[in-house]
Amino acid sequence: MRARAPASAANLGPGFDTLAVALELYVDVEVKPAPRLTVRSEGEGSDLPADGSNLAAQVAMAVAGNDRLAVTIRSQIPVGRGLGSSAAVAAAAAAAAGANNPMVVATVRDGHPENAAASIVGGLVSATTVVGATMVTRLSLDPGLVFVVLVPDRRLPTAAARQILPASVALGDAAFNLGRMGLLLGGLADRRRLVRAATEDRLHQASRSPLIPEASQLMAGLVRGGARAACVSGAGPSVLGLCDVETGRRVRDYGESLLEEARVPGRALLLKADTRGLVVGPP
Amino acid sequence: MRARAPASAANLGPGFDTLAVALELYVDVEVKPAPRLTVRSEGEGSDLPADGSNLAAQVAMAVAGNDRLAVTIRSQIPVGRGLGSSAAVAAAAAAAAGANNPMVVATVRDGHPENAAASIVGGLVSATTVVGATMVTRLSLDPGLVFVVLVPDRRLPTAAARQILPASVALGDAAFNLGRMGLLLGGLADRRRLVRAATEDRLHQASRSPLIPEASQLMAGLVRGGARAACVSGAGPSVLGLCDVETGRRVRDYGESLLEEARVPGRALLLKADTRGLVVGPP
Repeated sequence: MRARAPASAANLGPGFDTLAVALELYVDVEVKPAPRLTVRSEGEGSDLPADGSNLAAQVAMAVAGNDRLAVTIRSQIPVGRGLGSSAAVAAAAAAAAGANNPMVVATVRDGHPENAAASIVGGLVSATTVVGATMVTRLSLDPGLVFVVLVPDRRLPTAAARQILPASVALGDAAFNLGRMGLLLGGLADRRRLVRAATEDRLHQASRSPLIPEASQLMAGLVRGGARAACVSGAGPSVLGLCDVETGRRVRDYGESLLEEARVPGRALLLKADTRGLVVGPP
Repeated sequence: MRARAPASAANLGPGFDTLAVALELYVDVEVKPAPRLTVRSEGEGSDLPADGSNLAAQVAMAVAGNDRLAVTIRSQIPVGRGLGSSAAVAAAAAAAAGANNPMVVATVRDGHPENAAASIVGGLVSATTVVGATMVTRLSLDPGLVFVVLVPDRRLPTAAARQILPASVALGDAAFNLGRMGLLLGGLADRRRLVRAATEDRLHQASRSPLIPEASQLMAGLVRGGARAACVSGAGPSVLGLCDVETGRRVRDYGESLLEEARVPGRALLLKADTRGLVVGPP
Protein backbone atom coordinates (compact mmCIF):
# COMPACT_ATOMS: atom_id res chain seq x y z
CA MET A 1 0.00 0.00 0.00
CA ARG A 2 0.96 3.57 -0.47
CA ALA A 3 0.07 6.67 1.54
CA ARG A 4 0.84 10.36 1.35
CA ALA A 5 0.85 12.87 4.23
CA PRO A 6 1.49 16.62 4.29
CA ALA A 7 3.99 18.57 6.37
CA SER A 8 2.69 20.74 9.19
CA ALA A 9 3.58 23.86 11.14
CA ALA A 10 2.70 23.52 14.83
CA ASN A 11 2.18 26.02 17.66
CA LEU A 12 1.62 29.02 15.35
CA GLY A 13 2.73 31.31 18.16
CA PRO A 14 0.26 31.08 21.04
CA GLY A 15 -1.13 27.60 20.32
CA PHE A 16 1.70 25.76 22.06
CA ASP A 17 1.42 21.97 21.72
CA THR A 18 -2.09 22.24 20.31
CA LEU A 19 -2.49 24.16 17.03
CA ALA A 20 -1.07 23.05 13.68
CA VAL A 21 -1.69 23.73 10.02
CA ALA A 22 -1.01 21.23 7.23
CA LEU A 23 1.19 22.52 4.39
CA GLU A 24 1.53 21.46 0.76
CA LEU A 25 4.83 19.59 1.10
CA TYR A 26 4.44 15.83 1.08
CA VAL A 27 5.96 12.54 2.04
CA ASP A 28 4.93 9.39 0.17
CA VAL A 29 5.51 6.04 1.80
CA GLU A 30 5.05 2.71 0.06
CA VAL A 31 5.10 -0.58 1.93
CA LYS A 32 5.15 -3.96 0.13
CA PRO A 33 5.76 -7.54 1.19
CA ALA A 34 9.38 -8.60 0.60
CA PRO A 35 11.71 -11.45 1.58
CA ARG A 36 13.44 -9.17 4.11
CA LEU A 37 13.49 -5.53 5.17
CA THR A 38 14.66 -3.10 2.52
CA VAL A 39 14.49 0.68 2.91
CA ARG A 40 14.77 3.08 0.01
CA SER A 41 14.64 6.80 0.64
CA GLU A 42 14.53 9.64 -1.88
CA GLY A 43 14.46 13.39 -1.46
CA GLU A 44 14.48 14.99 1.98
CA GLY A 45 15.85 12.72 4.69
CA SER A 46 17.57 10.42 2.19
CA ASP A 47 20.85 11.10 4.01
CA LEU A 48 19.52 9.23 7.06
CA PRO A 49 20.48 5.53 7.39
CA ALA A 50 18.37 3.33 5.06
CA ASP A 51 17.98 0.49 7.52
CA GLY A 52 15.83 -0.69 10.41
CA SER A 53 16.51 2.56 12.29
CA ASN A 54 14.54 4.52 9.69
CA LEU A 55 11.33 5.93 11.21
CA ALA A 56 9.10 4.81 8.33
CA ALA A 57 10.57 1.29 8.53
CA GLN A 58 10.11 1.14 12.30
CA VAL A 59 6.49 2.23 12.06
CA ALA A 60 5.75 -0.14 9.17
CA MET A 61 7.33 -3.09 11.04
CA ALA A 62 5.39 -2.29 14.21
CA VAL A 63 2.10 -2.14 12.31
CA ALA A 64 2.78 -5.22 10.15
CA GLY A 65 4.19 -7.21 13.05
CA ASN A 66 7.13 -8.46 10.96
CA ASP A 67 10.17 -7.16 9.09
CA ARG A 68 9.57 -8.78 5.70
CA LEU A 69 8.81 -5.46 4.06
CA ALA A 70 10.07 -3.23 1.27
CA VAL A 71 9.66 0.36 2.45
CA THR A 72 10.07 3.27 0.04
CA ILE A 73 10.02 6.89 1.22
CA ARG A 74 9.88 9.89 -1.11
CA SER A 75 9.84 13.11 0.84
CA GLN A 76 9.65 16.83 0.14
CA ILE A 77 9.58 17.63 3.87
CA PRO A 78 12.85 18.92 5.32
CA VAL A 79 13.84 16.91 8.41
CA GLY A 80 14.45 18.48 11.83
CA ARG A 81 13.28 21.94 10.75
CA GLY A 82 10.00 22.24 12.66
CA LEU A 83 7.84 21.13 9.75
CA GLY A 84 6.40 17.99 11.30
CA SER A 85 8.44 15.60 9.15
CA SER A 86 8.43 12.78 11.75
CA ALA A 87 4.68 12.97 12.32
CA ALA A 88 4.00 12.99 8.56
CA VAL A 89 6.36 10.06 7.94
CA ALA A 90 4.88 8.10 10.84
CA ALA A 91 1.31 8.75 9.68
CA ALA A 92 2.04 7.83 6.07
CA ALA A 93 4.05 4.73 7.04
CA ALA A 94 1.36 3.56 9.45
CA ALA A 95 -1.33 3.94 6.78
CA ALA A 96 0.81 2.32 4.07
CA ALA A 97 1.40 -0.65 6.37
CA GLY A 98 -2.36 -1.01 6.88
CA ALA A 99 -2.93 0.58 10.29
CA ASN A 100 -6.59 1.08 11.14
CA ASN A 101 -5.85 4.21 13.12
CA PRO A 102 -2.75 6.02 11.83
CA MET A 103 -3.36 8.80 14.40
CA VAL A 104 -2.67 6.48 17.31
CA VAL A 105 0.45 5.08 15.70
CA ALA A 106 1.80 8.47 14.62
CA THR A 107 1.15 10.04 18.01
CA VAL A 108 2.80 7.20 19.90
CA ARG A 109 5.84 7.30 17.62
CA ASP A 110 6.22 11.03 17.28
CA GLY A 111 4.74 12.33 20.53
CA HIS A 112 3.25 15.36 18.77
CA PRO A 113 -0.48 14.89 18.41
CA GLU A 114 -0.95 18.33 16.83
CA ASN A 115 1.47 17.60 13.98
CA ALA A 116 0.02 14.14 13.45
CA ALA A 117 -3.50 15.57 13.49
CA ALA A 118 -2.68 18.17 10.82
CA SER A 119 -0.93 15.54 8.66
CA ILE A 120 -3.91 13.22 8.89
CA VAL A 121 -6.89 15.58 8.84
CA GLY A 122 -5.40 18.46 6.82
CA GLY A 123 -6.17 22.14 7.21
CA LEU A 124 -6.01 23.95 10.55
CA VAL A 125 -6.44 21.74 13.60
CA SER A 126 -6.32 21.80 17.34
CA ALA A 127 -5.33 18.58 19.11
CA THR A 128 -5.67 17.68 22.75
CA THR A 129 -5.36 14.46 24.72
CA VAL A 130 -8.53 13.26 26.44
CA VAL A 131 -8.19 10.18 28.65
CA GLY A 132 -5.15 9.05 26.69
CA ALA A 133 -6.66 9.54 23.24
CA THR A 134 -6.04 12.41 20.85
CA MET A 135 -9.12 14.52 20.12
CA VAL A 136 -8.77 16.57 16.97
CA THR A 137 -10.83 19.64 16.16
CA ARG A 138 -10.76 21.06 12.67
CA LEU A 139 -10.92 24.84 12.79
CA SER A 140 -11.88 27.37 10.16
CA LEU A 141 -9.04 28.54 7.89
CA ASP A 142 -9.43 31.36 5.35
CA PRO A 143 -8.49 29.95 1.91
CA GLY A 144 -7.01 33.35 1.05
CA LEU A 145 -4.08 32.76 3.40
CA VAL A 146 -0.72 31.37 2.24
CA PHE A 147 2.43 30.55 4.17
CA VAL A 148 5.99 31.70 3.59
CA VAL A 149 8.39 29.34 5.34
CA LEU A 150 12.00 30.30 5.89
CA VAL A 151 13.85 27.00 6.29
CA PRO A 152 17.43 27.16 7.57
CA ASP A 153 19.74 24.43 6.30
CA ARG A 154 20.63 23.34 9.82
CA ARG A 155 18.55 20.91 11.85
CA LEU A 156 17.25 21.42 15.37
CA PRO A 157 16.20 18.20 17.10
CA THR A 158 12.80 18.70 18.71
CA ALA A 159 14.00 16.95 21.88
CA ALA A 160 16.67 19.64 22.41
CA ALA A 161 14.11 22.36 21.81
CA ARG A 162 11.85 20.79 24.40
CA GLN A 163 14.50 20.38 27.11
CA ILE A 164 15.09 24.11 27.14
CA LEU A 165 11.48 24.91 28.10
CA PRO A 166 10.68 26.04 31.66
CA ALA A 167 8.79 23.70 33.99
CA SER A 168 6.40 26.41 35.10
CA VAL A 169 5.10 29.73 33.85
CA ALA A 170 3.32 32.74 35.34
CA LEU A 171 -0.46 32.37 35.40
CA GLY A 172 -0.65 35.69 33.54
CA ASP A 173 1.50 34.31 30.75
CA ALA A 174 -0.74 31.26 30.45
CA ALA A 175 -3.73 33.61 30.18
CA PHE A 176 -1.83 35.79 27.69
CA ASN A 177 -1.47 32.84 25.32
CA LEU A 178 -5.16 31.94 25.68
CA GLY A 179 -6.06 35.51 24.69
CA ARG A 180 -3.71 35.54 21.73
CA MET A 181 -5.03 32.15 20.63
CA GLY A 182 -8.55 33.59 20.46
CA LEU A 183 -7.24 36.51 18.42
CA LEU A 184 -5.32 34.13 16.14
CA LEU A 185 -8.22 31.75 15.52
CA GLY A 186 -10.44 34.71 14.61
CA GLY A 187 -7.79 35.92 12.18
CA LEU A 188 -7.12 32.52 10.65
CA ALA A 189 -10.87 32.12 10.02
CA ASP A 190 -11.07 35.58 8.42
CA ARG A 191 -7.75 36.94 7.24
CA ARG A 192 -8.96 40.55 7.26
CA ARG A 193 -8.94 40.22 11.06
CA LEU A 194 -5.45 38.68 11.26
CA VAL A 195 -3.12 41.10 13.05
CA ARG A 196 0.51 40.80 14.00
CA ALA A 197 -0.22 40.52 17.74
CA ALA A 198 -2.20 37.33 17.06
CA THR A 199 0.98 35.22 16.93
CA GLU A 200 2.52 36.61 20.11
CA ASP A 201 3.49 33.98 22.66
CA ARG A 202 4.87 33.87 26.18
CA LEU A 203 5.25 30.14 26.71
CA HIS A 204 7.89 28.77 24.38
CA GLN A 205 9.39 31.08 21.76
CA ALA A 206 11.44 33.24 24.14
CA SER A 207 13.10 30.33 25.94
CA ARG A 208 13.94 28.72 22.62
CA SER A 209 15.45 31.86 21.12
CA PRO A 210 19.05 30.88 22.10
CA LEU A 211 18.61 27.85 19.82
CA ILE A 212 17.25 29.98 16.97
CA PRO A 213 18.89 33.38 17.53
CA GLU A 214 17.89 34.66 14.08
CA ALA A 215 14.17 33.91 14.55
CA SER A 216 13.05 37.28 15.93
CA GLN A 217 14.88 39.16 13.17
CA LEU A 218 13.34 36.91 10.50
CA MET A 219 9.83 37.19 11.96
CA ALA A 220 10.03 40.98 12.14
CA GLY A 221 11.39 41.02 8.58
CA LEU A 222 8.55 38.88 7.23
CA VAL A 223 5.99 41.29 8.70
CA ARG A 224 7.91 44.25 7.30
CA GLY A 225 7.88 42.49 3.94
CA GLY A 226 4.10 42.17 3.94
CA ALA A 227 3.15 39.15 6.06
CA ARG A 228 0.17 39.73 8.35
CA ALA A 229 1.89 37.90 11.21
CA ALA A 230 4.83 35.57 11.80
CA CYS A 231 5.91 32.85 14.23
CA VAL A 232 8.33 30.01 14.73
CA SER A 233 7.20 26.83 12.97
CA GLY A 234 6.93 24.04 15.53
CA ALA A 235 10.08 23.97 17.65
CA GLY A 236 12.00 25.73 14.86
CA PRO A 237 14.36 26.57 13.37
CA SER A 238 11.96 27.35 10.50
CA VAL A 239 10.03 30.59 10.67
CA LEU A 240 6.55 31.06 9.23
CA GLY A 241 4.94 34.14 7.72
CA LEU A 242 1.13 34.20 7.43
CA CYS A 243 0.32 36.10 4.25
CA ASP A 244 -2.51 37.10 1.97
CA VAL A 245 -2.39 35.09 -1.24
CA GLU A 246 -1.95 38.37 -3.15
CA THR A 247 1.31 39.21 -1.36
CA GLY A 248 2.76 35.70 -0.97
CA ARG A 249 5.34 35.88 -3.77
CA ARG A 250 6.61 39.25 -2.70
CA VAL A 251 7.00 38.06 0.90
CA ARG A 252 8.75 34.87 -0.26
CA ASP A 253 11.23 36.88 -2.33
CA TYR A 254 11.77 39.26 0.57
CA GLY A 255 12.28 36.24 2.83
CA GLU A 256 15.15 35.06 0.64
CA SER A 257 16.89 38.39 1.12
CA LEU A 258 16.22 38.19 4.87
CA LEU A 259 18.03 34.85 5.08
CA GLU A 260 20.97 36.33 3.19
CA GLU A 261 21.09 39.43 5.40
CA ALA A 262 20.97 37.28 8.54
CA ARG A 263 23.69 35.03 7.01
CA VAL A 264 21.50 32.01 7.58
CA PRO A 265 21.94 29.46 4.78
CA GLY A 266 18.50 28.23 3.83
CA ARG A 267 15.55 28.65 1.51
CA ALA A 268 12.24 30.48 1.40
CA LEU A 269 9.17 28.46 0.40
CA LEU A 270 5.72 29.72 -0.54
CA LEU A 271 3.12 27.13 0.45
CA LYS A 272 -0.63 26.81 0.55
CA ALA A 273 -2.38 24.93 3.32
CA ASP A 274 -3.06 21.29 2.52
CA THR A 275 -6.74 20.51 3.02
CA ARG A 276 -6.81 16.78 2.25
CA GLY A 277 -4.53 15.39 4.94
CA LEU A 278 -3.57 11.74 4.75
CA VAL A 279 -4.39 10.08 1.42
CA VAL A 280 -4.21 6.30 1.30
CA GLY A 281 -4.26 4.39 -1.95
CA PRO A 282 -2.91 1.38 -3.80
CA PRO A 283 0.68 1.63 -5.05
CA MET B 1 -29.63 58.78 26.98
CA ARG B 2 -30.39 55.20 27.66
CA ALA B 3 -28.40 52.04 27.01
CA ARG B 4 -28.85 48.33 27.52
CA ALA B 5 -26.17 45.69 27.95
CA PRO B 6 -26.38 41.91 28.38
CA ALA B 7 -24.91 39.74 31.13
CA SER B 8 -22.00 37.48 30.26
CA ALA B 9 -20.38 34.25 31.33
CA ALA B 10 -16.59 34.42 31.18
CA ASN B 11 -13.82 31.79 31.09
CA LEU B 12 -16.10 28.95 29.94
CA GLY B 13 -13.66 26.48 31.46
CA PRO B 14 -10.35 26.67 29.57
CA GLY B 15 -10.64 30.26 28.27
CA PHE B 16 -9.40 31.85 31.48
CA ASP B 17 -9.50 35.65 31.33
CA THR B 18 -10.23 35.63 27.61
CA LEU B 19 -13.45 33.90 26.50
CA ALA B 20 -16.95 35.13 27.31
CA VAL B 21 -20.47 34.67 25.97
CA ALA B 22 -23.23 37.29 26.24
CA LEU B 23 -26.48 36.03 27.78
CA GLU B 24 -30.05 37.27 27.49
CA LEU B 25 -30.29 38.96 30.88
CA TYR B 26 -30.08 42.72 30.71
CA VAL B 27 -29.28 45.88 32.56
CA ASP B 28 -30.78 49.18 31.36
CA VAL B 29 -29.14 52.41 32.44
CA GLU B 30 -30.64 55.84 31.82
CA VAL B 31 -28.66 59.03 32.42
CA LYS B 32 -30.33 62.46 32.30
CA PRO B 33 -29.23 65.96 33.30
CA ALA B 34 -30.47 66.88 36.80
CA PRO B 35 -29.85 69.55 39.44
CA ARG B 36 -27.80 67.09 41.49
CA LEU B 37 -26.92 63.39 41.52
CA THR B 38 -29.84 61.06 42.03
CA VAL B 39 -29.59 57.29 41.74
CA ARG B 40 -32.57 55.02 41.32
CA SER B 41 -32.09 51.29 41.12
CA GLU B 42 -34.66 48.60 40.36
CA GLY B 43 -34.38 44.85 40.17
CA GLU B 44 -31.10 43.06 40.75
CA GLY B 45 -28.60 45.12 42.74
CA SER B 46 -31.29 47.47 44.07
CA ASP B 47 -30.16 46.55 47.61
CA LEU B 48 -26.84 48.33 46.97
CA PRO B 49 -26.55 51.96 48.20
CA ALA B 50 -28.34 54.36 45.82
CA ASP B 51 -25.72 57.09 46.06
CA GLY B 52 -22.43 58.21 44.55
CA SER B 53 -20.85 54.84 45.40
CA ASN B 54 -23.09 53.11 42.86
CA LEU B 55 -21.05 51.76 39.95
CA ALA B 56 -23.39 53.15 37.27
CA ALA B 57 -23.33 56.57 38.92
CA GLN B 58 -19.55 56.55 39.21
CA VAL B 59 -19.11 55.64 35.55
CA ALA B 60 -21.70 58.19 34.40
CA MET B 61 -20.07 60.97 36.47
CA ALA B 62 -16.61 60.08 35.14
CA VAL B 63 -17.85 60.18 31.54
CA ALA B 64 -19.97 63.35 31.95
CA GLY B 65 -17.31 65.12 34.01
CA ASN B 66 -19.87 66.31 36.56
CA ASP B 67 -22.37 64.98 39.10
CA ARG B 68 -25.51 66.78 37.96
CA LEU B 69 -27.11 63.60 36.73
CA ALA B 70 -30.17 61.46 37.30
CA VAL B 71 -29.09 57.85 36.94
CA THR B 72 -31.63 55.04 36.71
CA ILE B 73 -30.63 51.38 36.69
CA ARG B 74 -33.01 48.52 35.94
CA SER B 75 -31.25 45.21 36.10
CA GLN B 76 -32.04 41.54 35.57
CA ILE B 77 -28.40 40.55 36.17
CA PRO B 78 -27.66 39.04 39.58
CA VAL B 79 -24.74 40.83 41.26
CA GLY B 80 -21.59 39.06 42.41
CA ARG B 81 -22.56 35.73 40.87
CA GLY B 82 -20.05 35.49 38.01
CA LEU B 83 -22.45 36.83 35.39
CA GLY B 84 -20.54 39.96 34.46
CA SER B 85 -22.91 42.37 36.17
CA SER B 86 -20.24 45.04 36.80
CA ALA B 87 -18.97 44.99 33.24
CA ALA B 88 -22.53 45.20 31.86
CA VAL B 89 -23.47 48.04 34.21
CA ALA B 90 -20.25 49.92 33.42
CA ALA B 91 -20.73 49.49 29.67
CA ALA B 92 -24.37 50.57 29.74
CA ALA B 93 -23.68 53.53 32.07
CA ALA B 94 -20.75 54.70 29.95
CA ALA B 95 -22.84 54.58 26.79
CA ALA B 96 -25.86 56.23 28.45
CA ALA B 97 -23.60 59.05 29.62
CA GLY B 98 -22.35 59.57 26.07
CA ALA B 99 -18.96 57.81 26.09
CA ASN B 100 -17.44 57.42 22.63
CA ASN B 101 -15.78 54.17 23.57
CA PRO B 102 -17.71 52.27 26.25
CA MET B 103 -15.22 49.40 26.00
CA VAL B 104 -12.38 51.52 27.35
CA VAL B 105 -14.51 52.87 30.19
CA ALA B 106 -15.96 49.49 31.11
CA THR B 107 -12.59 47.77 31.03
CA VAL B 108 -10.93 50.43 33.17
CA ARG B 109 -13.76 50.32 35.72
CA ASP B 110 -14.32 46.61 35.81
CA GLY B 111 -10.91 45.20 34.89
CA HIS B 112 -12.48 42.34 32.93
CA PRO B 113 -12.08 42.98 29.22
CA GLU B 114 -13.69 39.67 28.28
CA ASN B 115 -16.91 40.43 30.16
CA ALA B 116 -17.01 43.98 28.81
CA ALA B 117 -16.35 42.70 25.29
CA ALA B 118 -19.24 40.23 25.45
CA SER B 119 -21.58 42.87 26.90
CA ILE B 120 -20.69 45.32 24.14
CA VAL B 121 -20.26 43.10 21.08
CA GLY B 122 -22.65 40.27 22.00
CA GLY B 123 -22.27 36.61 21.12
CA LEU B 124 -19.12 34.63 21.82
CA VAL B 125 -15.95 36.68 22.10
CA SER B 126 -12.30 36.41 22.93
CA ALA B 127 -10.62 39.49 24.42
CA THR B 128 -6.93 40.20 24.82
CA THR B 129 -4.93 43.29 25.68
CA VAL B 130 -2.57 44.55 22.96
CA VAL B 131 -0.36 47.50 23.87
CA GLY B 132 -2.82 48.59 26.56
CA ALA B 133 -5.92 48.36 24.39
CA THR B 134 -8.49 45.57 24.38
CA MET B 135 -8.71 43.66 21.11
CA VAL B 136 -11.95 41.77 20.74
CA THR B 137 -12.49 38.84 18.40
CA ARG B 138 -15.98 37.61 17.74
CA LEU B 139 -16.00 33.84 17.39
CA SER B 140 -18.50 31.50 15.81
CA LEU B 141 -21.34 30.31 18.09
CA ASP B 142 -23.86 27.66 17.07
CA PRO B 143 -27.36 29.20 17.42
CA GLY B 144 -28.64 25.79 18.53
CA LEU B 145 -26.88 26.11 21.88
CA VAL B 146 -28.60 27.41 25.02
CA PHE B 147 -27.28 27.96 28.51
CA VAL B 148 -28.60 26.70 31.82
CA VAL B 149 -27.23 28.84 34.64
CA LEU B 150 -27.43 27.70 38.25
CA VAL B 151 -27.27 30.90 40.30
CA PRO B 152 -26.70 30.48 44.05
CA ASP B 153 -28.27 33.17 46.21
CA ARG B 154 -24.94 34.03 47.83
CA ARG B 155 -22.45 36.46 46.32
CA LEU B 156 -18.75 35.82 45.67
CA PRO B 157 -16.73 38.99 45.15
CA THR B 158 -14.52 38.56 42.09
CA ALA B 159 -11.57 40.07 43.97
CA ALA B 160 -11.68 37.27 46.54
CA ALA B 161 -11.91 34.69 43.78
CA ARG B 162 -8.85 36.21 42.13
CA GLN B 163 -6.70 36.34 45.27
CA ILE B 164 -6.93 32.60 45.65
CA LEU B 165 -5.34 31.92 42.25
CA PRO B 166 -1.73 30.63 42.07
CA ALA B 167 1.02 32.94 40.78
CA SER B 168 2.45 30.29 38.51
CA VAL B 169 1.33 27.09 36.85
CA ALA B 170 3.00 24.10 35.21
CA LEU B 171 3.80 24.62 31.53
CA GLY B 172 1.88 21.43 30.82
CA ASP B 173 -1.21 22.87 32.48
CA ALA B 174 -0.95 26.03 30.37
CA ALA B 175 -0.74 23.84 27.26
CA PHE B 176 -3.63 21.70 28.55
CA ASN B 177 -5.89 24.75 28.59
CA LEU B 178 -4.80 25.79 25.10
CA GLY B 179 -5.74 22.33 23.83
CA ARG B 180 -9.09 22.35 25.57
CA MET B 181 -9.79 25.85 24.25
CA GLY B 182 -9.33 24.60 20.69
CA LEU B 183 -11.71 21.73 21.43
CA LEU B 184 -14.20 24.14 23.01
CA LEU B 185 -14.16 26.66 20.17
CA GLY B 186 -14.74 23.88 17.66
CA GLY B 187 -17.68 22.66 19.72
CA LEU B 188 -19.18 26.11 20.28
CA ALA B 189 -19.05 26.72 16.51
CA ASP B 190 -20.73 23.36 15.81
CA ARG B 191 -22.58 21.91 18.77
CA ARG B 192 -22.48 18.37 17.39
CA ARG B 193 -18.76 18.48 18.16
CA LEU B 194 -19.17 19.85 21.70
CA VAL B 195 -17.97 17.23 24.19
CA ARG B 196 -17.72 17.32 27.94
CA ALA B 197 -13.91 17.45 27.95
CA ALA B 198 -14.05 20.75 26.07
CA THR B 199 -14.70 22.72 29.27
CA GLU B 200 -11.94 21.09 31.31
CA ASP B 201 -9.53 23.52 32.89
CA ARG B 202 -6.33 23.38 34.93
CA LEU B 203 -5.70 27.07 35.60
CA HIS B 204 -8.46 28.43 37.82
CA GLN B 205 -11.41 26.21 38.66
CA ALA B 206 -9.57 23.83 41.00
CA SER B 207 -7.99 26.57 43.13
CA ARG B 208 -11.34 28.31 43.40
CA SER B 209 -13.24 25.20 44.41
CA PRO B 210 -12.93 25.94 48.17
CA LEU B 211 -14.96 29.10 47.47
CA ILE B 212 -17.57 27.19 45.48
CA PRO B 213 -17.48 23.71 47.01
CA GLU B 214 -20.73 22.67 45.32
CA ALA B 215 -19.51 23.55 41.80
CA SER B 216 -18.10 20.18 40.79
CA GLN B 217 -21.23 18.37 41.96
CA LEU B 218 -23.46 20.82 40.06
CA MET B 219 -21.37 20.62 36.89
CA ALA B 220 -21.38 16.82 36.92
CA GLY B 221 -25.13 16.90 37.58
CA LEU B 222 -25.82 19.23 34.64
CA VAL B 223 -23.99 16.87 32.29
CA ARG B 224 -25.86 13.89 33.76
CA GLY B 225 -29.07 15.84 33.17
CA GLY B 226 -28.30 16.31 29.47
CA ALA B 227 -25.93 19.27 29.11
CA ARG B 228 -23.15 18.71 26.59
CA ALA B 229 -20.59 20.30 28.92
CA ALA B 230 -20.48 22.46 32.04
CA CYS B 231 -18.20 25.01 33.70
CA VAL B 232 -18.04 27.71 36.33
CA SER B 233 -19.42 31.02 35.07
CA GLY B 234 -16.74 33.68 35.44
CA ALA B 235 -15.26 33.50 38.93
CA GLY B 236 -18.44 31.80 40.20
CA PRO B 237 -20.40 30.93 42.18
CA SER B 238 -22.78 30.42 39.24
CA VAL B 239 -22.38 27.26 37.19
CA LEU B 240 -23.15 27.03 33.49
CA GLY B 241 -24.45 24.11 31.45
CA LEU B 242 -23.99 24.23 27.66
CA CYS B 243 -27.03 22.55 26.15
CA ASP B 244 -28.75 21.79 22.91
CA VAL B 245 -31.84 23.95 22.51
CA GLU B 246 -33.94 20.76 22.41
CA THR B 247 -32.84 19.69 25.90
CA GLY B 248 -32.59 23.11 27.58
CA ARG B 249 -35.83 22.95 29.56
CA ARG B 250 -35.19 19.46 30.82
CA VAL B 251 -31.69 20.44 31.96
CA ARG B 252 -33.01 23.61 33.61
CA ASP B 253 -35.62 21.58 35.55
CA TYR B 254 -32.98 19.06 36.50
CA GLY B 255 -30.73 21.93 37.59
CA GLU B 256 -33.39 23.07 40.05
CA SER B 257 -33.40 19.65 41.66
CA LEU B 258 -29.58 19.69 41.73
CA LEU B 259 -29.58 22.93 43.72
CA GLU B 260 -32.07 21.40 46.16
CA GLU B 261 -30.07 18.20 46.53
CA ALA B 262 -26.88 20.19 47.14
CA ARG B 263 -28.81 22.37 49.63
CA VAL B 264 -27.68 25.47 47.76
CA PRO B 265 -30.40 28.14 47.81
CA GLY B 266 -30.60 29.59 44.33
CA ARG B 267 -32.33 29.41 40.97
CA ALA B 268 -31.89 27.73 37.60
CA LEU B 269 -32.19 29.95 34.52
CA LEU B 270 -32.50 28.90 30.89
CA LEU B 271 -30.92 31.56 28.67
CA LYS B 272 -30.09 32.04 25.04
CA ALA B 273 -26.96 33.84 23.96
CA ASP B 274 -27.45 37.55 23.34
CA THR B 275 -26.19 38.47 19.87
CA ARG B 276 -26.78 42.23 19.85
CA GLY B 277 -24.52 43.37 22.66
CA LEU B 278 -24.75 46.99 23.76
CA VAL B 279 -27.77 48.84 22.43
CA VAL B 280 -27.78 52.62 22.78
CA GLY B 281 -30.90 54.66 22.23
CA PRO B 282 -32.91 57.66 23.35
CA PRO B 283 -34.87 57.26 26.62
